[in-house]
Amino acid sequence: MTQPVKGRVTIPSENNFYEETLKIAAQWHADAVRDSDGTHLDPRFKDNHMKIYNAYFPVRGHNDFISQHREEIPEAYLMSERVVATEATVTIAFAEAYFDQQLQPDYRHDPKEYWQVYDRTAGVVIDPVQWSVDQAHNTITVTDITPWHEFTVSFLAYCIWDPVEMYNHLTNDWGDKPHEMPFDVLQPHSHEFVLAEMKRWLADHPEVDVVRFTTFFYQFTLIFNKHAKEKYVDWFGYGLTVSPRMMAEFEKATGEKLTAEDFVDEGYYNSPFRVPSDHFRQYIDFVSQFVSETAKELVDLVHADGKEAMMFLGDHWIGTEPYGKYFSHIGLDAIVGSVGDGTTTRMIVDIPHVRYREGRFLPYFFPDSFNEHNDPSIEAKQNWIQARRAILRAGMERMGYGGYLSLAAKFPKFVDTVTQITDEFRDIHAHTQDTKPQSNLRVYVLNQWGKLRSWQAFTVAHAIPNKGSYTYYGVMEALSGMNVDVHFLSFQDILKNGIPNDADVLLNMGDEGTAYSGGDVWQNPQLVAAINAFVHQGGGFVGIGDPSAVRYQGQFFQLKQLLGVEREVGYTLSYDKYFTEVTKDHFITQGIDQFNWGESKLGVYSTDEATQILEYSNGEIHLSAHPFGQGQGVYMTGLPFSFLNARLLMRAIYYAAGATDRITQGYADNPACEVSLFPETHQYCVINNSAEAVDTTVYLNATSKHAVHLAGNAIEWGSLK
Amino acid sequence: MTQPVKGRVTIPSENNFYEETLKIAAQWHADAVRDSDGTHLDPRFKDNHMKIYNAYFPVRGHNDFISQHREEIPEAYLMSERVVATEATVTIAFAEAYFDQQLQPDYRHDPKEYWQVYDRTAGVVIDPVQWSVDQAHNTITVTDITPWHEFTVSFLAYCIWDPVEMYNHLTNDWGDKPHEMPFDVLQPHSHEFVLAEMKRWLADHPEVDVVRFTTFFYQFTLIFNKHAKEKYVDWFGYGLTVSPRMMAEFEKATGEKLTAEDFVDEGYYNSPFRVPSDHFRQYIDFVSQFVSETAKELVDLVHADGKEAMMFLGDHWIGTEPYGKYFSHIGLDAIVGSVGDGTTTRMIVDIPHVRYREGRFLPYFFPDSFNEHNDPSIEAKQNWIQARRAILRAGMERMGYGGYLSLAAKFPKFVDTVTQITDEFRDIHAHTQDTKPQSNLRVYVLNQWGKLRSWQAFTVAHAIPNKGSYTYYGVMEALSGMNVDVHFLSFQDILKNGIPNDADVLLNMGDEGTAYSGGDVWQNPQLVAAINAFVHQGGGFVGIGDPSAVRYQGQFFQLKQLLGVEREVGYTLSYDKYFTEVTKDHFITQGIDQFNWGESKLGVYSTDEATQILEYSNGEIHLSAHPFGQGQGVYMTGLPFSFLNARLLMRAIYYAAGATDRITQGYADNPACEVSLFPETHQYCVINNSAEAVDTTVYLNATSKHAVHLAGNAIEWGSLK
Ligand SMILES: [Mg+2]
Ligand SMILES: [Mg+2]
Ligand SMILES: [Mg+2]
Repeated sequence: MTQPVKGRVTIPSENNFYEETLKIAAQWHADAVRDSDGTHLDPRFKDNHMKIYNAYFPVRGHNDFISQHREEIPEAYLMSERVVATEATVTIAFAEAYFDQQLQPDYRHDPKEYWQVYDRTAGVVIDPVQWSVDQAHNTITVTDITPWHEFTVSFLAYCIWDPVEMYNHLTNDWGDKPHEMPFDVLQPHSHEFVLAEMKRWLADHPEVDVVRFTTFFYQFTLIFNKHAKEKYVDWFGYGLTVSPRMMAEFEKATGEKLTAEDFVDEGYYNSPFRVPSDHFRQYIDFVSQFVSETAKELVDLVHADGKEAMMFLGDHWIGTEPYGKYFSHIGLDAIVGSVGDGTTTRMIVDIPHVRYREGRFLPYFFPDSFNEHNDPSIEAKQNWIQARRAILRAGMERMGYGGYLSLAAKFPKFVDTVTQITDEFRDIHAHTQDTKPQSNLRVYVLNQWGKLRSWQAFTVAHAIPNKGSYTYYGVMEALSGMNVDVHFLSFQDILKNGIPNDADVLLNMGDEGTAYSGGDVWQNPQLVAAINAFVHQGGGFVGIGDPSAVRYQGQFFQLKQLLGVEREVGYTLSYDKYFTEVTKDHFITQGIDQFNWGESKLGVYSTDEATQILEYSNGEIHLSAHPFGQGQGVYMTGLPFSFLNARLLMRAIYYAAGATDRITQGYADNPACEVSLFPETHQYCVINNSAEAVDTTVYLNATSKHAVHLAGNAIEWGSLK
Repeated sequence: MTQPVKGRVTIPSENNFYEETLKIAAQWHADAVRDSDGTHLDPRFKDNHMKIYNAYFPVRGHNDFISQHREEIPEAYLMSERVVATEATVTIAFAEAYFDQQLQPDYRHDPKEYWQVYDRTAGVVIDPVQWSVDQAHNTITVTDITPWHEFTVSFLAYCIWDPVEMYNHLTNDWGDKPHEMPFDVLQPHSHEFVLAEMKRWLADHPEVDVVRFTTFFYQFTLIFNKHAKEKYVDWFGYGLTVSPRMMAEFEKATGEKLTAEDFVDEGYYNSPFRVPSDHFRQYIDFVSQFVSETAKELVDLVHADGKEAMMFLGDHWIGTEPYGKYFSHIGLDAIVGSVGDGTTTRMIVDIPHVRYREGRFLPYFFPDSFNEHNDPSIEAKQNWIQARRAILRAGMERMGYGGYLSLAAKFPKFVDTVTQITDEFRDIHAHTQDTKPQSNLRVYVLNQWGKLRSWQAFTVAHAIPNKGSYTYYGVMEALSGMNVDVHFLSFQDILKNGIPNDADVLLNMGDEGTAYSGGDVWQNPQLVAAINAFVHQGGGFVGIGDPSAVRYQGQFFQLKQLLGVEREVGYTLSYDKYFTEVTKDHFITQGIDQFNWGESKLGVYSTDEATQILEYSNGEIHLSAHPFGQGQGVYMTGLPFSFLNARLLMRAIYYAAGATDRITQGYADNPACEVSLFPETHQYCVINNSAEAVDTTVYLNATSKHAVHLAGNAIEWGSLK
């Protein structure tokens, strides 16, 4: 076995904890030290060998400045609650639902020009002559309307409290600590201030090696309600990027005029689950271009000062779009992001155009995990195990932790656990030498977002499970550690360039009418024809939930012909459903007899004798396969994450690809285990994802297999030679 | 107690079973005797006191005639299987999926004029110049098409075997018995023949008192596949009414030209679950008018002969539409129909414009029920109990049985059970004197069909449960015996005339996009405004499943404002869902702690603090209530039938109506029991729907209650004075 690579670990520290930090850093072989929210590093780090990271917040923390330029506070379009008119006049307290310490109506710009009153029952905008604003009470009175219709007001509001600081402030009861007001770098004074402040800060911080931008300019959408509770959170939301200036610049650049409804989107605020409108796509592009150009100005200053620029993937990350076409222009050296699981790991480590990527592991050293009632080493271990399989697939140059090290130091078992984790992390690098693991197949995940939102599908708030999406998110998580290459493809990519030549399997999943399933795009014959041809000529298609779903021309699944199943949405009840018999001993279900379909779809049935039904219960199909020409379609109703479900998906993908003979190229027959092959270093490893000791047969190829016993969560390396 | 009314019962009989029939008839107090399929009555019935019913089949059983006029055989539009083209030419064996002994392509009428080839992927009709028919092989070759699109052929076919006779023939293995060919009374020779044959038959059958039409002219849609198995069944289907002549007559009458697609409907064949197109509505109207006029010709002959005309509600009943505007013109004396449950009972007994209605109870005296392994008295009892509560609500003048009496006679326990049932049936009449029971509320069931399809919503095949509809059918069944007046209302009724003044509660239910939920009609602001006003001013709205569902203007439930709940279909995942606490001790759930929601909807959540969540599990709501102005909205995700669920619905309806104080007007606190009040005869009864003995408190009004013990399935009568 090669020697462990030293370093690769970032440790948090704080004032008056210098000696203790050095001791733990030695144990973890940490080679970089960072501050955390509310901590400052001991000045003595300046003189030791460790790299110093310092968080940098470009657009908050300067109330002295922004209070002189309140017109440059960022804004959001908000929709009032819906109000049913009981007569021909209605008065709407439009801001009532919102937290007035966060959001204040913008009366600086003419409401008649920027706001909209909607008759939501009729689906029409009310002529502004019919309404008037009462600025003292934040109400709008609308006249000459149809009684018993429902009305909304879309209005511009200043976001006067930085949402992340607000969240921390409220959560930690910071009392009368002043609220940090954000500022919008699109505005002239703010732009000038941000650059000047960056220069000043660099001059003041010669000891810093890495400027950790947290982040750049626009916070993801986070809106609180009148009770100071979270009302709306969209980790991808562009809601807080808007301003009359941004709209004007957009119009100048594109010729397209935006209205309130482009942002309000019927109250859905362009959720990433919505099929994006053309305007919203253009707007993302426009903001991203602006953000990349302006972020580059800061990064250039950092570089000119001889420092590295690192971006935190979170908070004010909107517009950076790390998988978008402008990201490379920023010129960042590194990315750091919070590791919630395998999917978020891949979201970080697959980002191109940076020299290195760092995962911040959990738990954060805060009292919620570090207290006398909790053993934080458990979460640390779980977090590591779920990320490990993704790291084995895609690499991760560095890892680290955050929070108060002085707190973590009181938990010696935790410190020991992290010692083991960091050793194991470095050991992976020692064996892999940052080379790529073998991939046996190429899978393209197909949705409205494609590459732009790689590893970001089905996330609402970063790494937080959601009842409406965990059934699909489980597929992302399963893929994050699977020995296949995962790519992301949009419908528009197919319509423009066809299906990539190297695709083995297309995967489409999600609920009817969402951006992930695709919605009306499935009425486009060019799309359907392309996939028909691809599969008929030997490709694989895996559909999960409502794949290719739109109610059109006698089908709900527009790819029914290749899936061999249809979902009963009420129109085919008159048809007899003959086929209910389960195919036993099928490749896909081999060794798997427990199923969990999550928020499963009801009423899926076979439309073809050739359909192989693999699981049938409650009078419906949850898993099936179907030949189509030289290729195969596989259907499943849903797949929440578990290691067993990850195995099921793996077998389904290999089957769909017609590559069942390739499954032994790095395989363990125990579903708790996974095998990665590193041909360039002639190494392989077997991991045990379960906390229990297990036995498994390990296959390195079709002719080489051997038995292995693995301790709980163990990783074992071997030679391919 | 008044004396039982004698008679009211029809008994089946057969040749050589005269004396035995008289004996059982005496036991059952039967006053009418009928033949059954394949039986003939003993000639001696001519001279006894009993009325004689005789089945009459106007459009089948005369192969001698129709084989001389094969061009008058009824037709159907059929859609081929969908075929994916792998190149620019495709050949479709369009009739391959169908049973060739039932269905034969019509080459008599020019395929180029009547058939359609569809590109289903592009959603366009292919120009007939691009295709040619190979009559010898029943194939169509289409050229110059886009490869990888999917194609269908819609073609006219003669239905050369009467579907009901075919079903009996195949089921009973009748071997080489000739297939009965139907004929179409719209055609000149058939029309003439039907009238002449009716006259001849009447002359030949002086002994008959009641001509039981089974039925008139058009069989409901029943299509078999190439394996001689049922492929498609729609008890309401107009599929077998079509012909080039019918299309021509339609065009003459309406000015509208029909095409194959008007019948094929993307392959959905105008299922009653589909929102009906304007053409299909017009077509139903047109056929119904024709059927009523032509049926009247036969009924007039029957009357002229001094006999009664009775119609069987089934088989060739298409176009009679007993709740439609032409039915009364037929001039029928009576209706008879098969009693499957409470809903089918109401479907029969609520039919207007006849003097009496007769229910044919189960089991039919056939060997499938009457054999040594089965006790047919169990089904007889269950059938009676489920129908009884509907009979108590709406009356049923007569009852009867069908099949081979000689077979039933071998089951003395069964004969005794029917003796009890018929006694109980007459006893109901003795107490009620055919007066109406008290109704405390008026409920309008709102869907696309309205009154035309009273008690027919959610049926696919008569009284056969269906996975896709039992969750809503349970509501119909619950209503069939509830002490409320049930009416059926269409959206068009509301748009034309507003909500009826006497409505207490509107009920809308079904799956998104179906005729029962309503589909796109919910985008009509006039509809939504009318219901908003109705409920706000004190009305009740009960929504089940996907009520008012259409994806429009930021809502899925367009009546979210009055239901206080929304269903997550993927667009509002970014919104926090705060409200999950269940309201205890609510009127609706009082005494009910077991729930069964059937094929329940996923992801329903509260949108309003004021929503009373009544059942919450799996992270979602299945039952809730919400105030709206002076009225209430109630939501439930589904309601398969059980007596407990019927009670739950009853309480929900009273709550929605704001009529909780009226629930004691005829109420039993044991959910197994129901109370009916007959104010005109000053009688009331308590029924025990369960087979077990029960105790209950009976409420006759707000101030009168008393304890009752009831034997299993008992009915007890008392005086209201
Ligand atoms: Mg240093
Ligand atoms: Mg007689
Ligand atoms: Mg009646």
